[in-house]
Amino acid sequence: MARPLNIDAAALDRAYVLHPFTNLEDHARTGGPMMVKGSGITLTDASGKTYLDAMAGLWCVNVGYGRAEIADAIREQAVTLPYYHGFSSMSTDTPAILAERIVKAAPEGMARVFFGSSGSDANDTQVKLVWYYNAARGKPGKRKIIARNRGYHGVTLAAASLTGLEGLHKGFGIPLDFARHVRAPHRLWEAEPGMSEADFVARLAGELEDLILAEGAETVGAFIAEPIQGAGGVIVPPKGYFPAIQEVLRRHDVLLIVDEVICGFGRLGTMFGSEVYGIEPDLMTIAKGVTSAYVPLSGCVVSQRVYDVIAGAGRTHGPFGHGYTYTAHPIAAAAALANLDIIENENLIGAAAERGAQMRAALADAFGDHPLVGEVRGEGLVAAVELVAKREPATRFDPSLKVAPRVIKAALKRGLISRALPSSDTLAFSPPFVVTSAEIAEIVGRAREALDEVTNELSTEGALARAS
Amino acid sequence: MARPLNIDAAALDRAYVLHPFTNLEDHARTGGPMMVKGSGITLTDASGKTYLDAMAGLWCVNVGYGRAEIADAIREQAVTLPYYHGFSSMSTDTPAILAERIVKAAPEGMARVFFGSSGSDANDTQVKLVWYYNAARGKPGKRKIIARNRGYHGVTLAAASLTGLEGLHKGFGIPLDFARHVRAPHRLWEAEPGMSEADFVARLAGELEDLILAEGAETVGAFIAEPIQGAGGVIVPPKGYFPAIQEVLRRHDVLLIVDEVICGFGRLGTMFGSEVYGIEPDLMTIAKGVTSAYVPLSGCVVSQRVYDVIAGAGRTHGPFGHGYTYTAHPIAAAAALANLDIIENENLIGAAAERGAQMRAALADAFGDHPLVGEVRGEGLVAAVELVAKREPATRFDPSLKVAPRVIKAALKRGLISRALPSSDTLAFSPPFVVTSAEIAEIVGRAREALDEVTNELSTEGALARAS
Repeated sequence: MARPLNIDAAALDRAYVLHPFTNLEDHARTGGPMMVKGSGITLTDASGKTYLDAMAGLWCVNVGYGRAEIADAIREQAVTLPYYHGFSSMSTDTPAILAERIVKAAPEGMARVFFGSSGSDANDTQVKLVWYYNAARGKPGKRKIIARNRGYHGVTLAAASLTGLEGLHKGFGIPLDFARHVRAPHRLWEAEPGMSEADFVARLAGELEDLILAEGAETVGAFIAEPIQGAGGVIVPPKGYFPAIQEVLRRHDVLLIVDEVICGFGRLGTMFGSEVYGIEPDLMTIAKGVTSAYVPLSGCVVSQRVYDVIAGAGRTHGPFGHGYTYTAHPIAAAAALANLDIIENENLIGAAAERGAQMRAALADAFGDHPLVGEVRGEGLVAAVELVAKREPATRFDPSLKVAPRVIKAALKRGLISRALPSSDTLAFSPPFVVTSAEIAEIVGRAREALDEVTNELSTEGALARAS
Repeated sequence: MARPLNIDAAALDRAYVLHPFTNLEDHARTGGPMMVKGSGITLTDASGKTYLDAMAGLWCVNVGYGRAEIADAIREQAVTLPYYHGFSSMSTDTPAILAERIVKAAPEGMARVFFGSSGSDANDTQVKLVWYYNAARGKPGKRKIIARNRGYHGVTLAAASLTGLEGLHKGFGIPLDFARHVRAPHRLWEAEPGMSEADFVARLAGELEDLILAEGAETVGAFIAEPIQGAGGVIVPPKGYFPAIQEVLRRHDVLLIVDEVICGFGRLGTMFGSEVYGIEPDLMTIAKGVTSAYVPLSGCVVSQRVYDVIAGAGRTHGPFGHGYTYTAHPIAAAAALANLDIIENENLIGAAAERGAQMRAALADAFGDHPLVGEVRGEGLVAAVELVAKREPATRFDPSLKVAPRVIKAALKRGLISRALPSSDTLAFSPPFVVTSAEIAEIVGRAREALDEVTNELSTEGALARAS
């Protein structure tokens, strides 16, 4: 039976769906754009309006929408073997082939992949792996995980506890008590005026060590970090940050979990973000880009050192007592293999680097001297334009003005999808790797128009004077 | 680029995959069957050997393997719109259409669907919904969740804490401290000899109430239960169990979360297990059967009463601060719609009832008088054969004998996939709804041969005398 035509799906959406990260009462009243078609970086909604998607969905549709190669691979796998599990030594072939491919592309020392279906479940699994590993080597007290303010690690109870954004904690009574947070490496807001990059790094590493000592190193199991903090603001770490952090972690026998959910598989112009910043992970989280979101898939990539302890613990505990029904799903793995083939065959990592440089230059040109722009930053094909009430010294807008969300709304009106990130007024840009030069110019042009519109409104409202 | 031929995927699996619920060191040495093809209820492994899958994967491939209708629907959605998200009031059409269909089929009072990708993430979300709901109505202390021994609710830190099986806790240092567990409604092991069904129910309801009073009702947020406990032993509740439990919960203002991950969408010969046992949920968890596992998808179905409080809390908290990248995934929803079409068009819920009655009768015939069988039980198309060292009084085998796992191994040798459930020696049967009468006879026949083989071995080893 084909999907019924002429159905008012938007009405059903307002009536029956509990939406993620949405104002629920507003949505039930007014709804929002319902997307029905996608091709390349362009989306079409139910009214026929088109949008340039400068966010690749949620930083994930890296090869672009509507790729027949992935659709065909999924279909072929579905008629051949749509599902089988990996419990009790059972297996299927596509996850095995994918696991090898991921490990071979991963930073040195990475050895095994545990598959899941979302970045959230993978980070939840990482917490369990850290606890299991430490208990197995006689250090069961090492359970606290240190994360960073503005870090985004997902939304299960454990993952949301690691996430360092107030919007994910409010009302839920979290974070849970195993989570701790340190300062984000966000120069614009967290460094003292005139502080050198090296001094800022020393401060961040020092604060991390102070926290470990205050908690007791015997209670701290791991530190978790994204190479670039994505949803928390596209925060580019200062030079030398990760080597300095890693030195502290090693000294206190604390594992490093690198959350490559956004950066992994090419976003920074390299296979993983770890390569860019000299990160040497013990555990690595992947999702999004591994399938370009065509099918839910995530993974915990585990170093040999950690794996050996976990596998050895089986002698005491029996079978490793963790796993999802959809761990190592064969269709998800088939989608990932087709997606990685596209990335390889079309040299899309090179494209991300090249288009990224072009996009960041265009953003700097368009926004660099705008009076309401405090910083344009990024790496590879991800960038942020941070809006400020005043440039010197950098001063935030009153949050109640909702400046960035208003710019996003003005952009949406112009057929551009960008995203406002929380905690300060940041516009994010993270398009599919297949974005063209012409599309980049269009994205940046429409974004500038949107900012100008809101600047004028703020000026008319007298809000610019008020804010500074 | 097509998948390389002649690759030794089994070797890659042993070398690179961290397997769920598997003895990791053994697996790295010897591996296990690698499935490469499926059709109907039959799987084929890499060596060409075929298996009747009496478990439908992990209680999930309800419409059988290799259904072109679902494969085609997935492909069509992938080329049209492979992904878009539901954050910030955005939407796509297939999840909206699916949400209506689920709500209309669900027990009375159910109103909205929050989508995820696994039963685990959905139960994790249920905990967050309970906490958010209770905090929003001024009862933030109501955070404890009472689950049952032998309950299976998944493997995130929160979900695994609700799961009542030791194998999921050992080595991880869980359950977390919000979880409590009460006795399973398992007559064979938990009722006193000669106890009536009504007295057993009164005992279970009384123990639940005692626990709520001991903890303080002001600290208890919800009770979570599967209609039939699946992975914990295919435990059929005694008559009147849920009405008695619900009376206690209502009296103490405790929500009921019904975990329909296995029972939902037809397994018991009804759309939901709730219908069979008079369950009136406040929150309902779905996964597995909603897509027959072709694409990962789960959901929290939320009652109007709970939804209204959650939506209203937005006036204080702003946008509802929870959601997965893959919440409301359009391909997952397209797979679900195609799957539900098949179930409807082929009357597979009726088939589950009919074949189920036939399977349970055949199991009772084949195993009812076997000296090592303590009970044959089930409902619809799910059943268990529980093995005992002695029938009167029912006496467990020494767990170190691993009787059920040995029977499963003997069955696998005969091309039959069943599953040994933990905590006592239980064989499970939960085939796809498309199983034929001839296949049921074959499943039961091979299972009986496998049990006879192990019975002879145990007898030879002198283990039967030892065990009683």
